[in-house]
Order: sequence, then structure tokens, then C-alpha cells
Amino acid sequence: MQICCKRKDRNRYDTTSHFFPNNSMPSNARIYVGIDAGGSKTELVAAKMQEEELLNLFGPCGNPARVGFKDSADVITDLIVQAVERLQGESIASVCAGVAGAGRPKDQHLLHEGIRSRLKDRIPTSARDVPVRVTHDSLIALEAAFEGESGIMVISGTGTVSLARTNSGEFLRAGGWGYLIGDEGSGYALGADGLRAVAHAFDGGPDTALCDLLAASGDVTSKEDLFEVVYKKKTPLQRFARIVIQGACDGDPVAERIVRKHIALLTEQVCWLADRCSAIRPRITLLGGLANNPFYRKRLSSALLERLSGWECMQPLNRPVIGAWRMANDMTQGEGLAGSEQGTSA
Amino acid sequence: MQICCKRKDRNRYDTTSHFFPNNSMPSNARIYVGIDAGGSKTELVAAKMQEEELLNLFGPCGNPARVGFKDSADVITDLIVQAVERLQGESIASVCAGVAGAGRPKDQHLLHEGIRSRLKDRIPTSARDVPVRVTHDSLIALEAAFEGESGIMVISGTGTVSLARTNSGEFLRAGGWGYLIGDEGSGYALGADGLRAVAHAFDGGPDTALCDLLAASGDVTSKEDLFEVVYKKKTPLQRFARIVIQGACDGDPVAERIVRKHIALLTEQVCWLADRCSAIRPRITLLGGLANNPFYRKRLSSALLERLSGWECMQPLNRPVIGAWRMANDMTQGEGLAGSEQGTSA
Repeated sequence: MQICCKRKDRNRYDTTSHFFPNNSMPSNARIYVGIDAGGSKTELVAAKMQEEELLNLFGPCGNPARVGFKDSADVITDLIVQAVERLQGESIASVCAGVAGAGRPKDQHLLHEGIRSRLKDRIPTSARDVPVRVTHDSLIALEAAFEGESGIMVISGTGTVSLARTNSGEFLRAGGWGYLIGDEGSGYALGADGLRAVAHAFDGGPDTALCDLLAASGDVTSKEDLFEVVYKKKTPLQRFARIVIQGACDGDPVAERIVRKHIALLTEQVCWLADRCSAIRPRITLLGGLANNPFYRKRLSSALLERLSGWECMQPLNRPVIGAWRMANDMTQGEGLAGSEQGTSA
Repeated sequence: MQICCKRKDRNRYDTTSHFFPNNSMPSNARIYVGIDAGGSKTELVAAKMQEEELLNLFGPCGNPARVGFKDSADVITDLIVQAVERLQGESIASVCAGVAGAGRPKDQHLLHEGIRSRLKDRIPTSARDVPVRVTHDSLIALEAAFEGESGIMVISGTGTVSLARTNSGEFLRAGGWGYLIGDEGSGYALGADGLRAVAHAFDGGPDTALCDLLAASGDVTSKEDLFEVVYKKKTPLQRFARIVIQGACDGDPVAERIVRKHIALLTEQVCWLADRCSAIRPRITLLGGLANNPFYRKRLSSALLERLSGWECMQPLNRPVIGAWRMANDMTQGEGLAGSEQGTSA
């Protein structure tokens, strides 16, 4: 587990003016802890209100949907225990963990109980009363992106989900329905449709540059290979999103059609969200692996701004772990719940 | 295991004039055995060339993709052993088994070896040299449908696949790519798109009668329920095809759009097949659970005949097990292979 103290460069976005909810020096300068438990790593940040990061710790994947609830609780608890040890003498006011794959209240509750029971065994009695909150990682990202204010966040990675925070602080969601009945505009959906187009070409359908791109990228040169890759090797289909984007960049009409279709579907989803409540500050931020692809990002932001006139597309103000830190801070202001909650439901 | 001797009424289609490849009395009036190993049951038919069925036996599901190769080989072997016992004194010339879920040559080979080794232990030495052939169930259905002549067969059940036999006896396939990158026009695809439309309605998208139909049919009245049904209970999505068809029958525009989209995609697939070889007798037969739905069947046949002018849509001439019986017969005419083969590849 890598430990970095006061490494402000890890904060991808400019946080100097955004990190703290206000610049007033609080009377009790205690420490708040934010955790972002994601699919590839888990990050912890500890800081007082008026200071820069005291501690920045990293652990492995903490997504319970991937590693199970036991391991997820272990990873998160390990980081909290390390923070308590490092910050000996300092008082931790609260901890908030945003956890990927824990969108449902009962999953959050399960995880919360797991963390609480582990902490009971592992931290000194004096520190045991620290309140811990478990929420979905999309909510900490939204909190971080707009610093607790209004806007719409569109996440397009392996899956897709769009989240809005209204002017009155209400949360709305669209999408996030997973690969079987949702994920329009995601890496998964693009990859699946790319392979589908290759299957069609094998069947006598429109020829596409995706066949050559797929052959060049791996071992798919026959029908048998294609079956093998999808059903036997169970290759994550999002891996093929890049060849679809490559094909569209190269002007292949089939790939272009796939990208256009998915950008349109995702844009529609965001518009439903915007229509459901007019009291949203007209700004959108794009997150996720696919949204970081310049070609896709440009297409998506153009499509969104064309449909939502007067809106702006902006970078998130902070990285997600800072959202968790901010929510930990809120917990002691009587605004947050110590426990679990329904993170992403509208 | 149910045993029915000489039950000709089990042969759903009129077989009096179609059952036998020719009406000439062969010199060696030996017995041929056909087996249809499907997802719900396995059926065996034994008959001489010039007589009606001597034996019609039934066993449980024999699809290795569902029950595994061991159980599949057991089910098929059990039926062959029973047939040998029942037909004591008669000479079995050959056995052909059409097996669902065994489209790949190596799976067919594995199954063939499993059946051969079991037969070695279980039947008298004198009967051991009976040649056994394993093929895909779609091929026996095609053989049965057109009695070994040319035409296109479209199967639309849980999945979809289209198969053609050309005038020169070549086989062509389109579709059959499974639920992740194929199955356009299938029960699975209709069901998945139906639930997707319900998800969209929850998100603020177009309202649809599918929400009420889904609520009336089960327990889906909330977002949480929808997730639960798809990802936790892992309900087979093809179960929801019927509500989509119901919705389309009732005139719901969203359901109507889903049915229209899938009929068009499946029609396109069949046209690719027809375009790949002009030497196909212009006739189509529709098989599979979804194709048996009158509304869907009418829509699909209309769409096909609109695109393929001069073609006819007909009932299959025989039920699939008769195709296996016919192929068993071919094996002793030097036309078939005793062993495994690539059943469904073009």
C-alpha cells in the first residue's frame, strides 16, 4: 500500500480555491477523512478544514461487486486504521467512503456494518466513536465536480449513468441500468455493437473496417474466433470500444454509425434528466474512461450542447475523493447521515 | 422415460408422404435411429425405411450447454441402449443425434466420443459397431423441414439463427451469435429491449404500456425491482418477450417500435443469406418458440415476403427428429460421416 503525505499533485484538478467549503477557520480544527473505493484502487485523503492534505493513502480495488463485501470492507478498514495510526494525537471527526458497486441502500448498509465491526477490533477505544458513512462513488464524484452545488454529471466508462444535483440539493439519476438492459453510450455498448457489426459482416452484411481492426488487434479472423472471444474467453466487451472509435476516426461508416447511435442515446438520457427538473444549474461535466477519449468527448459534448442550448460543458472542479472528504465534513455539520443511504436513486 | 411405440400422432407434421426419402423397398431392411436432443426433452425415433415408426422414446434435456457433456452423453446413450433392447433381433444400421448447444465441431467430437465409450460398456458386442453421428439440432431441423432439399429456415426462439441449404447441398448460416452480440429478433432480444424501455420510462423517457404490463405480470413496480429481476434474480429475459408482443398487439407505440425493429433486423439477416447464394429454392420456414406466436409470425413472414419477392413461407414438412432419422439413413448410403462435424457453419 503506497503512502503519500501532503502530495497535492495527486489532486488532478485545481483545488486550491475549491478544496474547502469555506475559508473560515473552524473552532474545532479536527480531521476529516474521505475515501474513494473504486474498481482499480481505493484512495483515502485526510485533511483539516483549513489545511492541505495531511495524508493520502492508496489501497487495492474496493468495489464489492468485484471483490465481495468482505474484501471491500477489509480494504476500506485497512486504510482507516492506517490513517488513525498516522494521525495519532489528532482527532478524526468523521469518515465518508464513496464505493463503486454499492449503489443500493442495503449494500451500503452491509458494508457500513462490516467496516464498523472491523474498526471495533482494530482501533483504540478513544477513536471508535468516529462516524462512518458509506455512499455510492458516483455521489462523491458529483459532490466533488460541482463542490456540492447544482449541475449534471455524465459518467461514461464501462457503463454509463447520468446524475443531476438540483438547485435545492435533490439528486436525480438516469441510466446506470447495467450491461443487460442499459449502458447506452458506454465502452461496453460500443464494444458489443462493434463485434456485432463484425458478426454481420461475416453473415454477408455491410463490410466494415472493424473486421481488419479486430484482426490486427488480436486473434479474431474467423467466426469461430469471434465466438471464442465473447463466450469462451469472456473478454470484457468494453475492450473493443477503442477499435470502434478508431474505425469512426478513420471514417468507417459502420463504426461511425455505432458512435453516432450511442452518443444520441446518451444525449437523450441526459435530456430526460434535464427535463425532469428545470431547477438545475445549466452545466455538465463528463467523467469516465470513455469520456476521456478526445474523439468521443468532443462528439458527446457537441451533441449535448446542441440539444441543451445555454448549457456549458466543464471539467470537474475536484477529483472524486475530495467529494468524499467534503461529505465527511458535512456529517459533522448535521447535514449528513452516519450510516448508509440510497446513494444514486432519484 | 416415456415410451411410445408406433405413435404416429407425435409427428406434428404430415409425414405420410414425406417420412421416407424414397418409396423403393431397400434390399437390407435395417433400422435407422434419429435423435433430437433439445433444451426441454430428448426424442428418439427408430424406423425401417419402408415402415412407420417402430419406436418413439423420450428422455430429459440433452443440451450439453445446459446439463454438461457428461449428462448429455448419458441421456443420449440411455435412449440408444433402450432402443437396442427393444429392437432385439433387429439390426440397427446407424444412429444420428441432432444436439442443441453442440454447434462446434470440437463439442460434437467430445459428445461423440462420450456416447461411443458408454455404448461400449452397455450394449451387446454384436450391436457395438453401429455408427453414431453427432450434429447440431438446427441441421436436423433443416433436413426435416425441406426433406434434404433447398430452402431457408429461420429459427426464432430464445435466440435466432437462419440457415440455408442451397440447391447443391451447401449449408449457409447467418445469425446465431448469442445474446451478447447477436440474437436480433429473438425472445431474448425482445425481452431485453422491453425492460430497457421500462428503464427509460423510469428515467423520464417515453411512457409505455410495458410498465403496467410488467407490473401486472410480476413484481416490477420500482427501479429497485427492475435491477433485482435482471441482475439478482437473473430472470431469463426472454420471459418478457410476451409482454412486448402484448404491448404491440395493444397498440403501444414503444412496444410496436421494438417489434418492428427486431423483425427488420431478422429480415435483414435472412436477406444477407439469400443474397450470398442465388441457388436457393425460394422458400422459407419459421421455427422456434417466438415464431409460433401468431402475431410475431405474421409480422415476420410479411416482412420476409415483402423483401424477398417470389418466395413462399411454408410449414416444415417434418418434425426435427425425422431429420435426424433421415441423416442416419444417409450415413449408410455413403453420404454421411460417422463421427462429428461442423454442423452449422457456412
